[in-house]
Amino acid sequence: MRIARLRTPHGPRAAVLDGDSWDVLVADVPEPATGRDGRPVLPASSGARFAADDPAVAAALLAPCRPRVVVGMAHNSGPEGRALPPQAFLKSARTVVGPGTVVRHDRTLGALVAEAEAAVVVGRPCRDLRPHDVPGVLLGCTVADDLTADDQVALDAMMTRSKNGSGFTPLGPWVDTDARLDDAELVVEVEGVERARSTTAGLAYGVVEQLVFLTRHLELGPGDVVLTGAHRSAVPLGERPAGGIEVALSVGGVGTLRHRVA
Amino acid sequence: MRIARLRTPHGPRAAVLDGDSWDVLVADVPEPATGRDGRPVLPASSGARFAADDPAVAAALLAPCRPRVVVGMAHNSGPEGRALPPQAFLKSARTVVGPGTVVRHDRTLGALVAEAEAAVVVGRPCRDLRPHDVPGVLLGCTVADDLTADDQVALDAMMTRSKNGSGFTPLGPWVDTDARLDDAELVVEVEGVERARSTTAGLAYGVVEQLVFLTRHLELGPGDVVLTGAHRSAVPLGERPAGGIEVALSVGGVGTLRHRVA
Repeated sequence: MRIARLRTPHGPRAAVLDGDSWDVLVADVPEPATGRDGRPVLPASSGARFAADDPAVAAALLAPCRPRVVVGMAHNSGPEGRALPPQAFLKSARTVVGPGTVVRHDRTLGALVAEAEAAVVVGRPCRDLRPHDVPGVLLGCTVADDLTADDQVALDAMMTRSKNGSGFTPLGPWVDTDARLDDAELVVEVEGVERARSTTAGLAYGVVEQLVFLTRHLELGPGDVVLTGAHRSAVPLGERPAGGIEVALSVGGVGTLRHRVA
Repeated sequence: MRIARLRTPHGPRAAVLDGDSWDVLVADVPEPATGRDGRPVLPASSGARFAADDPAVAAALLAPCRPRVVVGMAHNSGPEGRALPPQAFLKSARTVVGPGTVVRHDRTLGALVAEAEAAVVVGRPCRDLRPHDVPGVLLGCTVADDLTADDQVALDAMMTRSKNGSGFTPLGPWVDTDARLDDAELVVEVEGVERARSTTAGLAYGVVEQLVFLTRHLELGPGDVVLTGAHRSAVPLGERPAGGIEVALSVGGVGTLRHRVA
């Protein structure tokens, strides 16, 4: 199942993909939850349907959830990261933006790097998970760009300065509830040119290990997002004209998130 | 003016202190905003009034806002902190709890430290503030306990593990819109015994400098909270019986936040 949020004249509404169209639901679901039966808890259909391949509909996609907590995994980008214990950083919930957003970065803060990541969306309140609990608390997966002001990392070991610029967490285009992340392809294109191709199989710690670690130290709940790490999917964004450049980030089995950087 | 949020049979409601009673408003205001006139934007009075000194009313106080972003200042606890540039860490918004909450800490995660801090509540969207902008974007001030799992700090330089346990940011009892924080007294009592007394005048960077620094690197908005730092107001919490111990944290001109730790 694919679940999105659409901008409509009546405000944001959740929608479920049915064949080649979005079935618009009667309400917004900014913090989507997983029920006891393991299925998403969703309101009824409004009866309205939009063709998914209509560019105006694609342009109306919002970030597929409105997390209270966004957490990223540090040094998780390759097998060498396992030499260290897992480590995580928080991103401000205000950095989350939807597909198509133009992210503006102040050049005086230095280089900007796009990082394509599979983003796990949590569906249930969770704390102190055991490995076998993890599948039951996950709603599904979306695509994230964990934008990083790379030159700020050296100035701030806590990564607060490097990870929290306006719009630094593009998220979308939807949540796929069936995607498997043990070996999902990661692809980054900039202005239509492929710049990186890899797989989540190369991450130091997998999704189950990440969730066990994270929920030992903090609570997560419906709509929260875990950025699972960028394995060879980080691409520096160099010269950018005033109108910006298009970045397209894909996670195999999930979809492609497009946004611009100016 | 003092603004609180109260648990009522109809759900949470904002309230304004009028003399010795809370004037309950018709709606909740989880993300309180400051208007262009510099005054809080609040709904109308419901006509209901509760005596502020009624213990049942005090027990109904909730955290006075529901922040999307909680940010704390690192190494800001004394003048020596000025030898370094300002640095900040994010806390999960899910750590925020109201007065009276029993915070349960897992002993296997090591020592727990209470840190009394003046907490600034933001009232307007802000980015790239100049010093003279700062007073206009602040709604007011409340009291925070920036609870810290001290033994985790050595394991995690990003402080994610040490700062984000369940209930690790008790906040309250209300927002005072008139408090001045340049020299506000900080007092910590544990089980009725004074354990620390100091003043915010000892912080490395003051509130204006903090907001200028923070908004250079991240967006803040209505209801967000900045924990300004613990100048000689950090107290290790040792032996705790099953029922817990009471911690009372006071900021001069604002009030006293009480909660329990078990």
